Amino acid sequence: MINAVICGASGYTGSELLRILASIPEVEVTALTSEQSAGKEITELFPHLSAYKGVRFEPLNMNVLVGRGDIFFLALPHSASQEAVEYFHSHGKKAIDLSADYRLKDPLVYERWYKTKHHFPHTLSHAVYGLPELYRQYIKNSSLIANPGCYPTTAILALYPALKQKIIETEHIVIDSKSGVSGAGRKSDVTYSFCEIADGFKAYGVASHRHTPEIDQELSLIAESPVKVTFTPHLLPVTRGMLSTVYAQLKGGTSLDAVHSIYKEAYEGEPFVDVLPIGKYPDIRNVRGTNICQIGMAISENGTLIIISAIDNLVKGASGQAVQNMNVMFGLDETTGLGLLPVLP
Amino acid sequence: MINAVICGASGYTGSELLRILASIPEVEVTALTSEQSAGKEITELFPHLSAYKGVRFEPLNMNVLVGRGDIFFLALPHSASQEAVEYFHSHGKKAIDLSADYRLKDPLVYERWYKTKHHFPHTLSHAVYGLPELYRQYIKNSSLIANPGCYPTTAILALYPALKQKIIETEHIVIDSKSGVSGAGRKSDVTYSFCEIADGFKAYGVASHRHTPEIDQELSLIAESPVKVTFTPHLLPVTRGMLSTVYAQLKGGTSLDAVHSIYKEAYEGEPFVDVLPIGKYPDIRNVRGTNICQIGMAISENGTLIIISAIDNLVKGASGQAVQNMNVMFGLDETTGLGLLPVLP
Amino acid sequence: MINAVICGASGYTGSELLRILASIPEVEVTALTSEQSAGKEITELFPHLSAYKGVRFEPLNMNVLVGRGDIFFLALPHSASQEAVEYFHSHGKKAIDLSADYRLKDPLVYERWYKTKHHFPHTLSHAVYGLPELYRQYIKNSSLIANPGCYPTTAILALYPALKQKIIETEHIVIDSKSGVSGAGRKSDVTYSFCEIADGFKAYGVASHRHTPEIDQELSLIAESPVKVTFTPHLLPVTRGMLSTVYAQLKGGTSLDAVHSIYKEAYEGEPFVDVLPIGKYPDIRNVRGTNICQIGMAISENGTLIIISAIDNLVKGASGQAVQNMNVMFGLDETTGLGLLPVLP
Amino acid sequence: MINAVICGASGYTGSELLRILASIPEVEVTALTSEQSAGKEITELFPHLSAYKGVRFEPLNMNVLVGRGDIFFLALPHSASQEAVEYFHSHGKKAIDLSADYRLKDPLVYERWYKTKHHFPHTLSHAVYGLPELYRQYIKNSSLIANPGCYPTTAILALYPALKQKIIETEHIVIDSKSGVSGAGRKSDVTYSFCEIADGFKAYGVASHRHTPEIDQELSLIAESPVKVTFTPHLLPVTRGMLSTVYAQLKGGTSLDAVHSIYKEAYEGEPFVDVLPIGKYPDIRNVRGTNICQIGMAISENGTLIIISAIDNLVKGASGQAVQNMNVMFGLDETTGLGLLPVLP
Repeated sequence: MINAVICGASGYTGSELLRILASIPEVEVTALTSEQSAGKEITELFPHLSAYKGVRFEPLNMNVLVGRGDIFFLALPHSASQEAVEYFHSHGKKAIDLSADYRLKDPLVYERWYKTKHHFPHTLSHAVYGLPELYRQYIKNSSLIANPGCYPTTAILALYPALKQKIIETEHIVIDSKSGVSGAGRKSDVTYSFCEIADGFKAYGVASHRHTPEIDQELSLIAESPVKVTFTPHLLPVTRGMLSTVYAQLKGGTSLDAVHSIYKEAYEGEPFVDVLPIGKYPDIRNVRGTNICQIGMAISENGTLIIISAIDNLVKGASGQAVQNMNVMFGLDETTGLGLLPVLP
Repeated sequence: MINAVICGASGYTGSELLRILASIPEVEVTALTSEQSAGKEITELFPHLSAYKGVRFEPLNMNVLVGRGDIFFLALPHSASQEAVEYFHSHGKKAIDLSADYRLKDPLVYERWYKTKHHFPHTLSHAVYGLPELYRQYIKNSSLIANPGCYPTTAILALYPALKQKIIETEHIVIDSKSGVSGAGRKSDVTYSFCEIADGFKAYGVASHRHTPEIDQELSLIAESPVKVTFTPHLLPVTRGMLSTVYAQLKGGTSLDAVHSIYKEAYEGEPFVDVLPIGKYPDIRNVRGTNICQIGMAISENGTLIIISAIDNLVKGASGQAVQNMNVMFGLDETTGLGLLPVLP
Repeated sequence: MINAVICGASGYTGSELLRILASIPEVEVTALTSEQSAGKEITELFPHLSAYKGVRFEPLNMNVLVGRGDIFFLALPHSASQEAVEYFHSHGKKAIDLSADYRLKDPLVYERWYKTKHHFPHTLSHAVYGLPELYRQYIKNSSLIANPGCYPTTAILALYPALKQKIIETEHIVIDSKSGVSGAGRKSDVTYSFCEIADGFKAYGVASHRHTPEIDQELSLIAESPVKVTFTPHLLPVTRGMLSTVYAQLKGGTSLDAVHSIYKEAYEGEPFVDVLPIGKYPDIRNVRGTNICQIGMAISENGTLIIISAIDNLVKGASGQAVQNMNVMFGLDETTGLGLLPVLP
Repeated sequence: MINAVICGASGYTGSELLRILASIPEVEVTALTSEQSAGKEITELFPHLSAYKGVRFEPLNMNVLVGRGDIFFLALPHSASQEAVEYFHSHGKKAIDLSADYRLKDPLVYERWYKTKHHFPHTLSHAVYGLPELYRQYIKNSSLIANPGCYPTTAILALYPALKQKIIETEHIVIDSKSGVSGAGRKSDVTYSFCEIADGFKAYGVASHRHTPEIDQELSLIAESPVKVTFTPHLLPVTRGMLSTVYAQLKGGTSLDAVHSIYKEAYEGEPFVDVLPIGKYPDIRNVRGTNICQIGMAISENGTLIIISAIDNLVKGASGQAVQNMNVMFGLDETTGLGLLPVLP
């Protein structure tokens, strides 16, 4: 039995972790923290989580919690996570950080984009970027996982085979992404109120979103040369789902069939990446509630490769990927708790 | 008093024309046609159009209709429109065609993309592309207007100032567009049923949408050299609204301020193009029900110009633009019937 | 020219007043107040209200404002409105109060339901309940209008003819109402965030909603005997629209045709009440953005009369009705500014 | 291993059965039929059902199918189901009919409401109404289950304890129901297209819906006296979910606490009925994708009992209840395959 502690469980990534973990017999959730909701029952905030009836949020007392978990999921706000990760990690515990605090390998890049210093560069140097499709072997042996951001997950999975096989130019890559509203978290903010979002669609964080350096870092590692992308996130009037349409210049005359084969091969055997047949494209509906990333592709008349990837931002884009990482770390079957079909229509 | 006949009035562009024309005292709608709904009252299909209580659809008998109108709006399906336009135009009437039949200047390009021959190339050569911001002077003196497609409207207005001033490369232009469902028309098709669309988001017509040659044609004319874009349309789970995010490579170091000035100047005095201040971006909510095109812009770290344009696909993308063209043709104030504020929230 | 001041203009009833008043040439909005947003431009909160570009919110300084308006619209929170109404009214100005403060004729009933004392019972006794279909003559000669609540508007218009003609029992009346989210106002409250509302539907304020005494008061006046209804409001996952399904026991064998005639006659000539033909029922879509109340009816097998009424909660349920009242007070055509067709689909 | 055949699997109740059965190791789906889609892969219509990759629809050849199943789920249109049920039942197979064909015990009532004769009154007399909370013992020993309609499920579960304990009058019961669009099935019908449903809300089938006699029949059996209700269904602009607000006159002074205790006791131990604490009310979000029926209650000032029940119309209102019935028939744990938590937000 694996004891799991969730720090910051009153947000949507926290509640999604709870939903998924409830179906895993090998895991017991032993503590849930929330500063604002400490003392409240979890079902008061999330009436749908009936499996946790009677369980209450508690405050984040790290010295009390450290003895109650084998694995610590940190779903805290960016920068608040730094210290908690450090604490549990230094006490020999496994940690999966769902914030951005341990994703950027260069503390100065982190400081530039998150406007706060990184106080634990040494621990940072031990963090493994938790994208199992790329780093499974490292995750297996690591005790500190930086769980990827939702946008980077779609962008990296969309570009990995093409960059790895060097069939595209690394300049002028465009990533046009669209996300459901739950990506913004559970907030009292008029900007995210129903009446301000419904019937709307807009770009935000244009040329300035914090996931940009994370995407650049990971694509550069794959390409083995510096990559700087153009990334534009948009807000969809749906709760869940993320779709990225990625554009890159194909090198000399690679055919669509050839590109498709490269993708099929790269993701062969991957339980959570579904490369669609040529002519089919992802729909966020079809991955809703699942850990699947669907990928489709085409080539435009002027030779641009178009890769489209779709995930559920709260699952493969956050909590599902965290559970996938946990499965890898603990030697469970990687699909444990993640085999559900979408609820459609 | 201008007598207007609407052919093909049982679709959404037809009903939107009726909504707008109802508020123009100078225009009287004298006939509405629909093959499938002939004999039915308009309010049976469109209960909200109470201003037309008692008015019925009639079949498209051109020889009967020709005497009843000064201006003929053709909201017929593609290829069905060819003959009707020819008929009314050859009888000396003014016509505004909302189909694609008279938009592509080269009949062979039309045939390639629409899989049907163009039978009236001579008449086609007289058609003016009805984008008043570019072709106002030609529209004024024309009796045959090819009303632009919705996607091309967003793409052309987004790129016109930059192409005209030659501040961007014409290669590798990417147009990532997102449209509300009403763009697909009023259809009995399970694909567009509520349960199949709600909570979804997907690309369609990837690298193969029929609006591509129209965009290429018009951008090439502006650039005075052949342009071939990469164009990807997506389907938003909203009824109305269209937003295009356009990417192009900036030539040598033009600043955002300089680009912004070029756009402000290009659209100065235009009643329906709203160039937003730097740092602000369009939302389809803010143009819902109006003839406005909002434009915002940014430059990414790697020097890519990002232009975002938003319209209501049924208004500036179809019926509103048609009325704007009518106003220009008849010497009315160009904003007649088009001054409404969006109904928000 | 009528000078209008709007106190509390940063909410949805305020912005809706602005949208409507923008189309009335006889009215000039001379001041807009908001405590929280004082100093900000109106278009910062409501980018769609482009007709008010440059206009800013100011604080509610009553002694400054009193000289700038002929008519004062109070869109302030309940209880905050009491004093403002008193002030402007006592200075000889016309006032239309969109809060609940002057709707309940008995100050003790007000105190019981709103948990606050009414400090101006004398002024209260001068207020006229602003439902023009019932009280047009009183409104014409009044300078203080209590604008009805949205739920009461649907309930009263649905029951008025039947109660007036005494064809239904006054006991066991059931009012099952469903409202769009904008009825809750423009709020930073996680309860009304997009992710908590989308895909949901629930009752709230069951057997305890504050509009209950207002409904009881007005129905009792019509019935000329005490009426106590059962009223259940529900929250629809749409921004606008309100539909009430009302149930009452028909007295001895009145036929549906007879009931329908009573309704047609009662509302003959009313510009904003649309009694649908037998067999047709309202849809909130069809009144969206308009001041119309649609009414349909049926009789169940066991002799229960079912009356269904639908309005736009922000228009006939709030700001549109306020403008209708203003039109009556100032002798304008009652439909001034209120003639728009819904934007559909 | 239980072999299951699904007849009429190309609709939403069919696809929902497939989703649920995919998680039950004791069940193997051996055949899926669809006349219109015979030959197509199931994932072509339902891309989310990846567990059935490669499986194809086949035509309804009963003599071929009869040997391939232990249990036959009939998700055929009303009246088409009559014969199929008869065939499989007469061949000694267990059958669960999701249509209305075997729900009404009186063939004349069936004929009156469904405008078609019942050809198998003898078989009809053997059918058990498949609401396990009321008829578990009969279901256990039956081989022919008439799976309840969605509206009746909400109405009966809402009223059962009160009628059984005779604390309410049986006259003047009002059932005001609201359903998601998936209740209308998977249809090519412009009425259910996204653009005609979004932002709307309306009543339909007022005083004439076919579920009325089913509700009357079952309530009469519970009350042991004839009951005729007033029933009004409405269409919610969501895909899934159903909520009924039920009104009945309380007999002499029963307190809310007493009513609540009666409900708690009546449903004690029921895995799928959740009687909420006093002051809490159901939300369709909280049961989305689950087999749960949530129930809340209140008493209005005039002594009317208000019972609110919510289900997922495709699960407890159709396919989930069918699986629950199968579990009872085959002696499986009743919650097998039905333990999932909702995917929220």
